[in-house]
Amino acid sequence: MKGEVRAFAPATVANVSCGFDILGFAIDTLGDVVRVKEKKEPGIQVVSITGDHGRLPLDPTKNTCAVAVQALLTELNRTIGLEIYLEKGLPLGSGLGSSAASAVAALVATNRLLGEPFEKKQLLPFAMAAEKIACGVGHADNVAPCLLGGFVLIRDYQPLDIIKLPVPKDLHCIVLHPHFELNTADSRAVIRDRIAVTQATIQSGNVAGLVAGLFQEDFELIGRSLKDVIAEPYRATLIPAFYQVKEAVLAAGALGMGISGSGPTLFVLTKGKDQIQQILEAARLVYYSFGLGVDGYHSSINTEGAYVLD
Amino acid sequence: MKGEVRAFAPATVANVSCGFDILGFAIDTLGDVVRVKEKKEPGIQVVSITGDHGRLPLDPTKNTCAVAVQALLTELNRTIGLEIYLEKGLPLGSGLGSSAASAVAALVATNRLLGEPFEKKQLLPFAMAAEKIACGVGHADNVAPCLLGGFVLIRDYQPLDIIKLPVPKDLHCIVLHPHFELNTADSRAVIRDRIAVTQATIQSGNVAGLVAGLFQEDFELIGRSLKDVIAEPYRATLIPAFYQVKEAVLAAGALGMGISGSGPTLFVLTKGKDQIQQILEAARLVYYSFGLGVDGYHSSINTEGAYVLD
Repeated sequence: MKGEVRAFAPATVANVSCGFDILGFAIDTLGDVVRVKEKKEPGIQVVSITGDHGRLPLDPTKNTCAVAVQALLTELNRTIGLEIYLEKGLPLGSGLGSSAASAVAALVATNRLLGEPFEKKQLLPFAMAAEKIACGVGHADNVAPCLLGGFVLIRDYQPLDIIKLPVPKDLHCIVLHPHFELNTADSRAVIRDRIAVTQATIQSGNVAGLVAGLFQEDFELIGRSLKDVIAEPYRATLIPAFYQVKEAVLAAGALGMGISGSGPTLFVLTKGKDQIQQILEAARLVYYSFGLGVDGYHSSINTEGAYVLD
Repeated sequence: MKGEVRAFAPATVANVSCGFDILGFAIDTLGDVVRVKEKKEPGIQVVSITGDHGRLPLDPTKNTCAVAVQALLTELNRTIGLEIYLEKGLPLGSGLGSSAASAVAALVATNRLLGEPFEKKQLLPFAMAAEKIACGVGHADNVAPCLLGGFVLIRDYQPLDIIKLPVPKDLHCIVLHPHFELNTADSRAVIRDRIAVTQATIQSGNVAGLVAGLFQEDFELIGRSLKDVIAEPYRATLIPAFYQVKEAVLAAGALGMGISGSGPTLFVLTKGKDQIQQILEAARLVYYSFGLGVDGYHSSINTEGAYVLD
């Protein structure tokens, strides 16, 4: 057993418009880093968290890193001592899978420290246990792409059925994180419990189109399929400038745009990198006209998922 | 202009479980044949129909072949004389796309007779106009695979967006047509107008899984994805022995089973041909125990769609 290991886990875009609650993908430029270090006394201790402005709990029963690692150790029936150091690279409450990235980075580091008793995919249930603590529900649409990379379909939860989808080489992503905070609970509360079957059929058609577009590397089809009738019409009312930004980025050459997770961050997909700067500029202008600042990141799709550093 | 042309159009399985109203595929062994022949006097005349036990209308405003051909001629702004001879190979009201096959065969024959003014895909709107007369709604989930072959996704209707999906080479189909008639209107009436968002999400996950399975030639994934929460739970109550047949064919090695279109015909997918006989036998035994006869057909997937004969 190596004394300490550091791991990186990427930001993720869950839902991907038509893939409400079943799709997610990982991006390259943003993520969390967790260092896990052996200690003599048994038990898990969250020693330090940086980059969270003091908002995340150190309590190991509430911290997602510690909860995930505890689930892993429980499965192995091991009681060892571990120190956890979390460096947040992701903004909290942004809809970029912040809690998922912390949990996954901690799991990948711990798994390596222990000599890799688990394959990567086998770490999923532990990350989902942490998501349950952080978000109230043990969804996999952030943790699965965060762990595995690329586009990931969660076909079913009982039992868990995770399908990795191909990523067209020229597919790029822009993440727009407005300086505006949206409560995840509010964002979930606006969604209706029931929808018309005709709407469910539209959603199915689009998610089938998106999956086909990824396999066929058909960028136009990917763009046409980025439509969501379940969450977007309601969540958009909570996100300032949503429709104006959408109009602007599509006019500037984007394939499509949607809400990342429960928002307020938006994701934009593009073919190649040529339009990236004009799309970022167009989005910034709209946000500014609404009196809002925005952080805009360009990224390719991360196809490997979380990994050990050094 | 050639004096007469005959064309064949295949039976189709619409919905394909999770693909309610958006997916269909064509099968090889069953279909309709239409002969179209020039005549001197302008106007469309349905001269004869065989195999329908006298149930289909000869009236060109009600006959799907004539309605489809009229739509084509109207688009071309042509008034010529045509005789139509329809040989029904498909049972009526079986859920195998009987009206679609007649309309598509008539269109493919007429298009060839006129020197192919349209590409195959361009014939779709004419076939949909005929479906509207026959079924009350201009759905494309039978006519699109009937015309184009293979698995076809109807991603959207406005505008029409048809995506051909790949067909794994070893994928085979069994069609079980019990001697029992089900009224299409009854079969549509039982479906609820609204569903829970959680159910819509399950449906989306399965249709995404089915599309991924077809691209990846992952037969197990195709089988696991053949689940329908929108129509099957309700339509199954109108179809004798549905759950018993399902249990029997799965036990005999089928990948999955569902209702073909609005039923009562069922479709079964298999990997390869080895289990075909035992699946057919298992299904027959169940139907017999319910006092029902059944016609069982084995077929590969038709990947070419309708074609000109001779």
